Amino acid sequence: MKKIAVLGSGSWGTALSIVLADNKHQVHLWGREKEQVDDINLNHENSRYLPGVKLPQSIKADTDLTEVLTGVDTVVVVVPTSAIREVLKKVKQILTSPVLFIHACKGIEPGTYLRVSEVIEDEIPVSLRSGVVVLSGPSHAEEVSLRQPTTVTSSSLDLRQAEYVQDLFMNQNFRVYTNPDLIGVELGGSLKNIIAICTGMTNGLGYGDNAKAALMTRGLAEIARLGIKLGANPITFAGLAGLGDLIVTCTSVHSRNWRAGNLLGRGKDMETVLAEMGMAVEGIRTTKAVYQLSNELNVEMPITSVLFQVLFHEKSPHEAVADLMGRVKKHEVEDLKL
Amino acid sequence: MKKIAVLGSGSWGTALSIVLADNKHQVHLWGREKEQVDDINLNHENSRYLPGVKLPQSIKADTDLTEVLTGVDTVVVVVPTSAIREVLKKVKQILTSPVLFIHACKGIEPGTYLRVSEVIEDEIPVSLRSGVVVLSGPSHAEEVSLRQPTTVTSSSLDLRQAEYVQDLFMNQNFRVYTNPDLIGVELGGSLKNIIAICTGMTNGLGYGDNAKAALMTRGLAEIARLGIKLGANPITFAGLAGLGDLIVTCTSVHSRNWRAGNLLGRGKDMETVLAEMGMAVEGIRTTKAVYQLSNELNVEMPITSVLFQVLFHEKSPHEAVADLMGRVKKHEVEDLKL
Repeated sequence: MKKIAVLGSGSWGTALSIVLADNKHQVHLWGREKEQVDDINLNHENSRYLPGVKLPQSIKADTDLTEVLTGVDTVVVVVPTSAIREVLKKVKQILTSPVLFIHACKGIEPGTYLRVSEVIEDEIPVSLRSGVVVLSGPSHAEEVSLRQPTTVTSSSLDLRQAEYVQDLFMNQNFRVYTNPDLIGVELGGSLKNIIAICTGMTNGLGYGDNAKAALMTRGLAEIARLGIKLGANPITFAGLAGLGDLIVTCTSVHSRNWRAGNLLGRGKDMETVLAEMGMAVEGIRTTKAVYQLSNELNVEMPITSVLFQVLFHEKSPHEAVADLMGRVKKHEVEDLKL
Repeated sequence: MKKIAVLGSGSWGTALSIVLADNKHQVHLWGREKEQVDDINLNHENSRYLPGVKLPQSIKADTDLTEVLTGVDTVVVVVPTSAIREVLKKVKQILTSPVLFIHACKGIEPGTYLRVSEVIEDEIPVSLRSGVVVLSGPSHAEEVSLRQPTTVTSSSLDLRQAEYVQDLFMNQNFRVYTNPDLIGVELGGSLKNIIAICTGMTNGLGYGDNAKAALMTRGLAEIARLGIKLGANPITFAGLAGLGDLIVTCTSVHSRNWRAGNLLGRGKDMETVLAEMGMAVEGIRTTKAVYQLSNELNVEMPITSVLFQVLFHEKSPHEAVADLMGRVKKHEVEDLKL
């Protein structure tokens, strides 16, 4: 039994808390809002993010970060990419001894293009961290909270720490694999959102499963090309944090990125789409960053390029698909360059 | 403009005829039934297999194989795996000079475990064939017939012939890549049916997208392991004929294999499932063949093994999933062995 702090009480932070509590660990969950924290402590429910799911009574929630971090040597970070630095700055002020950081965030920091593990290393001095591990893979929080079969990947530059995290989370419903390719695992989870916007867009245009499968296959190939250039292992993109997460995101209408693409395909302009979505769409920022990065690194990414033109230069989605279909003849294997 | 014989007037043979006719080729389509052939010639429709789709008037259909083969140097074979040898034996009797064989069949010959290109080489003497090319990839016939965006792979041991087939079929809606890995392209299209049964089964059990994504990811990895042992290029399984076709088959409820698995997951026994399906389910035969082959070759295929137990030894689907989730801890990258 370990005492573990989980920072972030959204659907994914809460679902991971359930897995840890099922494994008999003592979970201290940090949330910003008193009402939600009370809901978890008194009703054993997070009715805003996981309505209808009964939480294990052993999960304790708190709005006080100091309280949550007291006496723990393992911290799970599950906050939006845009909020990570701010939370880490607070954590740094509170910690007095090193802890293991596990993060389950998918995204690249706006502006710096840093992966989340790099942001953690940037903010937390070596004296206050014993390691950094990422947990990623195809995992709708709702299904995890219902104990439905789920598989994820635990990754760290230090394989022993990835294995430690595997042991913490693994149970009959939640299967954890390890993978030493931290770069590939973090990139897979972030870059898949570009392809999710595209598959939503072809759906909005009225195209079918053939177009979706083509985009996902060719999309994964170009993500892998960039990943390899950035130091990732190509095999990671064929695994749970690459292909697996891509499948869950592109074939589910629940994805915010997919829905934004779908609206674009139906002919809505960007302003309307952003207004209808109500908040930032992670994949739009990612598309811009990756487009710029691929140009800098001279990596061919035709799907990302054409989506960038749609999102930022008013190319019509219809013309975008015609562009992709009208490219010169290709040899598939050379082109995949895995 | 080429004169091309298409053997097989099901939905896929008819859809490929549309692509060729759109590219201004003269298509002679061979079908077994007079009524259907008349429908195509008189009404320019194949109302049994592609209802509602208007066919190009240049497509001519015939029940007479000799008539269809006269004056052609390119033959596209699109018949069920179980009927291939019988059709090829007739073709051999009629041909007087070598033709290029293109096949668009997905499956392994029952009994012999031969790929379709091997069956063609087995039946047709060298003096009557100038080459063998396979066309495969994520392609619902209905979508192709509606000119929706579709991508496929053309593969042959002779790359020039794969490129010739690429030129025959490629147009604005139908994008053709080439791939010299004939073994991988043929295996990808055949073995995916095993995984399609499994994803149907988890759906029938009430499990969600996480389980589906896990099965597809881990399933593709074990298919690739067998493929590599049989001489395929691992990259092919990440391409259109591997991953692409897997996506189309596992995320569409139209797949016969998926539907058979779904019934099993809902608790129906094999006899009932086969009766309800009305005809042979290709993936069931494939599962048996691949299970035996993986044992002979000593390739670890946990998903295929457990499905074999469900299909042939009355293991319950519920227990099968529990078995997969309860395996020993794994390192993902070693395990993928790509």
